Amino acid sequence: MALPYTYERRVRYRECDPMGVVYHTVYLDYFEEARTEALRHMGVRYRDLEADGIIMPVVHVEMDYHASAHYDDLLAIDVQFAQPPSVRVPIEYAVRHVGADDVLTTGHTTLCFMDAEQRRPTRPPPAVRQAFAAGLDPS
Amino acid sequence: MALPYTYERRVRYRECDPMGVVYHTVYLDYFEEARTEALRHMGVRYRDLEADGIIMPVVHVEMDYHASAHYDDLLAIDVQFAQPPSVRVPIEYAVRHVGADDVLTTGHTTLCFMDAEQRRPTRPPPAVRQAFAAGLDPS
Amino acid sequence: MALPYTYERRVRYRECDPMGVVYHTVYLDYFEEARTEALRHMGVRYRDLEADGIIMPVVHVEMDYHASAHYDDLLAIDVQFAQPPSVRVPIEYAVRHVGADDVLTTGHTTLCFMDAEQRRPTRPPPAVRQAFAAGLDPS
Amino acid sequence: MALPYTYERRVRYRECDPMGVVYHTVYLDYFEEARTEALRHMGVRYRDLEADGIIMPVVHVEMDYHASAHYDDLLAIDVQFAQPPSVRVPIEYAVRHVGADDVLTTGHTTLCFMDAEQRRPTRPPPAVRQAFAAGLDPS
Repeated sequence: MALPYTYERRVRYRECDPMGVVYHTVYLDYFEEARTEALRHMGVRYRDLEADGIIMPVVHVEMDYHASAHYDDLLAIDVQFAQPPSVRVPIEYAVRHVGADDVLTTGHTTLCFMDAEQRRPTRPPPAVRQAFAAGLDPS
Repeated sequence: MALPYTYERRVRYRECDPMGVVYHTVYLDYFEEARTEALRHMGVRYRDLEADGIIMPVVHVEMDYHASAHYDDLLAIDVQFAQPPSVRVPIEYAVRHVGADDVLTTGHTTLCFMDAEQRRPTRPPPAVRQAFAAGLDPS
Repeated sequence: MALPYTYERRVRYRECDPMGVVYHTVYLDYFEEARTEALRHMGVRYRDLEADGIIMPVVHVEMDYHASAHYDDLLAIDVQFAQPPSVRVPIEYAVRHVGADDVLTTGHTTLCFMDAEQRRPTRPPPAVRQAFAAGLDPS
Repeated sequence: MALPYTYERRVRYRECDPMGVVYHTVYLDYFEEARTEALRHMGVRYRDLEADGIIMPVVHVEMDYHASAHYDDLLAIDVQFAQPPSVRVPIEYAVRHVGADDVLTTGHTTLCFMDAEQRRPTRPPPAVRQAFAAGLDPS
């Protein structure tokens, strides 16, 4: 199985607060970038989905903060799609320093496939289901 | 009991995404503002805590998104301190349109009192405990 | 003349950087909020303009930083529309602490009235011209 | 001469507004990332400067917006240090799509070397002057 996908990200100055550490909301931005690149790696471009009338709003978020990251640190964000996507797409994240095992932050987001025009939940398009099937294939 | 405290907030342009709605991470910013003002209302200024060597990092976050908010909407964020603070401070949030009952987003954050220098959990200072005792008093 | 309009804004934690001061990009956010409220005060709601097919992108920005603002400071942002709007709308800003005269940051933004569909510059609608005429009237 | 340095950056969803384009303030974030990486390329790590008691606040900003960038676009930000750094460090930026010549946004920021403790302007440390001398060397 190709996943988890790992996305590397440098911490920027504006992302750190007066305590000198990455502000807690910023990890959600890292998660967005990480899942976008994980999807691209599987052959799914989110911008193409939108062009086809599909949006994927976030419907649930959870995060736990264990240790801090600091300015200019190079982070690794592991992304794991927990299961083949149905209407809902649960995704797990873990943030570490590149080259280290200690997990700084863990997170979970649930996205939802929606018809952009009707704003109603919908099934993922066939191309997405195939991409996930290939990406999640244990062989 | 004075709480829940309600904080009103206008949605800004930069907070909305290409779907035309408030981006999901932005609610965490609203929660920060709302709890800061709720604490101020109870007589606790976070900046004074920091000056006294106490910081309150966020250690856990949960959010559920039920309906969207749009540019220039005027939102009401209800803040509820679930219990008298010990080392941990759990806080509940609900976001509505001002004057409406439908809840758009609910959230939960757990903050932690920490000694800023030693970066270790600590008990809340007496002034904070007294402020909460008064604010949470059912009489 | 009713203007300059003054908008008050509390500095938030996420807006401060590891130097402990408001990060330089954040003043642009304050300017956006200040001009939106100045326009509302003159009777022009930007969301109504968009509903009428008019957008107002920013085409030029300048900022000078003289002194720092800190977490939880209460700031006053003065907004001055330099002239009646034609296709371009130049706006001046000055940021002070509430109740103080020292200017921390000055700024200038030029916005442009555009037809949203054709993405071409356009003249401001009559209602906007009238609102500005009233707001800028020296009598 | 090694410079201009070019930094590549993918546009993220949260950086786009309801017009569907990159929000005007976000280019300042791109500039920060681009100059940080340009400095790293020249052998100067900003985090090391801070550890040595030197900070580099931004004292002046200018930006001109010519054309829009959209979600998921891959941008090239060219960074040019205009001259060897004295107390002030003027930097020029131009944003294009990767592989294209049309300039979307141009910008200028002036940074200032400051003694972090005394909050007073100071001369750049010798290591920085040497790195710039090598980086700006026309030979």
